[in-house]
Amino acid sequence: MNILFTCAGRRRYLLKYFKEIIGGSGKIVATDMQLSAPALTVADVKVQVPQVYAEDYIPAILQICKKQLIDILIPLNDLELPILAERKSDFEAIGVKVIVSEPRVIDICFDKYKTAQFIESLGLKTPETYVDYNEAIAAIKAGRLNFPLILKPRWGSGSIGLEFVDDFDELEIVYKLNRKKVMKSILATASVDDNFILIQEVIKGPEYGLDIVNDLDGKYRGVSVKQKLAMRSGETDKAITVDNADIREIGATIGKALGHIGNLDCDVLERDGEYYVLELNPRFGGGYPFSQEAGVNIPKAIVAWVKGEDVDDSIFFPYYDAMFSKCDILLNVGQLQNKT
Amino acid sequence: MNILFTCAGRRRYLLKYFKEIIGGSGKIVATDMQLSAPALTVADVKVQVPQVYAEDYIPAILQICKKQLIDILIPLNDLELPILAERKSDFEAIGVKVIVSEPRVIDICFDKYKTAQFIESLGLKTPETYVDYNEAIAAIKAGRLNFPLILKPRWGSGSIGLEFVDDFDELEIVYKLNRKKVMKSILATASVDDNFILIQEVIKGPEYGLDIVNDLDGKYRGVSVKQKLAMRSGETDKAITVDNADIREIGATIGKALGHIGNLDCDVLERDGEYYVLELNPRFGGGYPFSQEAGVNIPKAIVAWVKGEDVDDSIFFPYYDAMFSKCDILLNVGQLQNKT
Repeated sequence: MNILFTCAGRRRYLLKYFKEIIGGSGKIVATDMQLSAPALTVADVKVQVPQVYAEDYIPAILQICKKQLIDILIPLNDLELPILAERKSDFEAIGVKVIVSEPRVIDICFDKYKTAQFIESLGLKTPETYVDYNEAIAAIKAGRLNFPLILKPRWGSGSIGLEFVDDFDELEIVYKLNRKKVMKSILATASVDDNFILIQEVIKGPEYGLDIVNDLDGKYRGVSVKQKLAMRSGETDKAITVDNADIREIGATIGKALGHIGNLDCDVLERDGEYYVLELNPRFGGGYPFSQEAGVNIPKAIVAWVKGEDVDDSIFFPYYDAMFSKCDILLNVGQLQNKT
Repeated sequence: MNILFTCAGRRRYLLKYFKEIIGGSGKIVATDMQLSAPALTVADVKVQVPQVYAEDYIPAILQICKKQLIDILIPLNDLELPILAERKSDFEAIGVKVIVSEPRVIDICFDKYKTAQFIESLGLKTPETYVDYNEAIAAIKAGRLNFPLILKPRWGSGSIGLEFVDDFDELEIVYKLNRKKVMKSILATASVDDNFILIQEVIKGPEYGLDIVNDLDGKYRGVSVKQKLAMRSGETDKAITVDNADIREIGATIGKALGHIGNLDCDVLERDGEYYVLELNPRFGGGYPFSQEAGVNIPKAIVAWVKGEDVDDSIFFPYYDAMFSKCDILLNVGQLQNKT
């Protein structure tokens, strides 16, 4: 069983989790734009590839799959998900199982405005969200939307371009600035509608991260709920697993309705005892290791499913009150490490 | 030899470097506002303390020093440096050597406008820097200052409040926004002059981080130069040690003139073969481990100096072309870890 991780970046722990599962029976292959990406230090084979929007990106990944006899491809970057979802059949034609959802699902998750509409269609709550500037202004004046607000790229990734505004003046100027910023960034390619800035109500209260697991047929199997205690660079930095049946129920509702494949990283905010679903990322998120360290094992499930085996649903639920923090270690990523 | 680290936060590697030096002959004590700070996992004794601006912060640290028989105190947070520098004699009265520079030095480093003036007084280059908004506008109109510019808190820490602006419109609105942001943040306490936003020329080119070492008498001893390859949350995330005699000379000039104590973290930018000194932080910076992993050993020197011994200056210079990256590991920081 050979596994390829694309855009491996800093997800060293995830490669290690999969390596533990396949043991000596296969190899871990990892790609990144930079051979010095720290996750590559634990790969058996590391390959430098073009940027995800480059014309030769998919051909390069296909070639690696053929050469390395890849069985499973696990993409880790938001921007490549739509591309891989569209090209999934090209990979399946050469025997590669791509752990990516269908384009309909990717579209709902990547477009944060569609995410909000999808969540509401399930009868769940989401923060008040606008993409039309004038509609947002009208909503504020009518009392349906209240400051503080958060502005963010509608097609975003990580914490790029998040800005809080406290009044009409700030809203006007930050909205203009944010438009310019996104147009100058890598997110410009993904911003396919002129209303590409989201204007959203800020919910102040506890934040939760969910790992909602569906199997390879898109059937819901389980959920892990973690309360986020600290963030860093848009990723969960410290978290504790919690036993909250209401939030698990929200996770189950989303997993069943969305029909994604594999792991869905989901953010939930709490205010006055009500839960607001904020974001859906149909991939392993930066908060996943907090589930794995608390006993969850999605890598084990994915490998079993691709082999045609099954696992007990208990491995998708963590033990509770496990508090973990990320912390830096230093890795040698220099020339000695680049020999493959 | 017992060593106390205040505001230990995420500096787990630094505590480990010191632990290697003292071995079984002493203990590592660490404080933070949160007992779940990941660096505390490697401390022999961990103590939760108030916020650095709280009235009872210094009394709490003094009490820990007495109770734990501390020999060396190493502060790690920018905001506590001015406070500890002023109170150094209170610690020395109970036998604690505080590795902090005198107030004059802290003031030059913490006030980025004074830093720029100090660098120029040494005949070195620094980016064009203004704190008076109208003077900055006049300088732009006169062609002495050119877009893009960077706005940042004059008394800042990390990457909080950094904003790039490309034209007069952006400068005007981001300047106003940044003033409001700083006033709402923890930096408000440190912002002691109404001109608390720095308006600075952006230098595009390679970035370097220096560890400039003076001994406990403020005498210059050596310097390690690293080229920064990636940043994350305001800290160096990836770097390579470089053999650059010009930058080492700049480091020596600064160390000799400033007379700081211990390590000085310094940023240098390169443009068209010229070097511009950007920032001085009179403490271990987030980029220090890139020096240590390449053979530098300031912890060994500090422990030796406090014992009245000396070390060879060679341990302040790294071997070259060592490329390292930070990467996350997961640490259990839950209840089991809180028992001390």
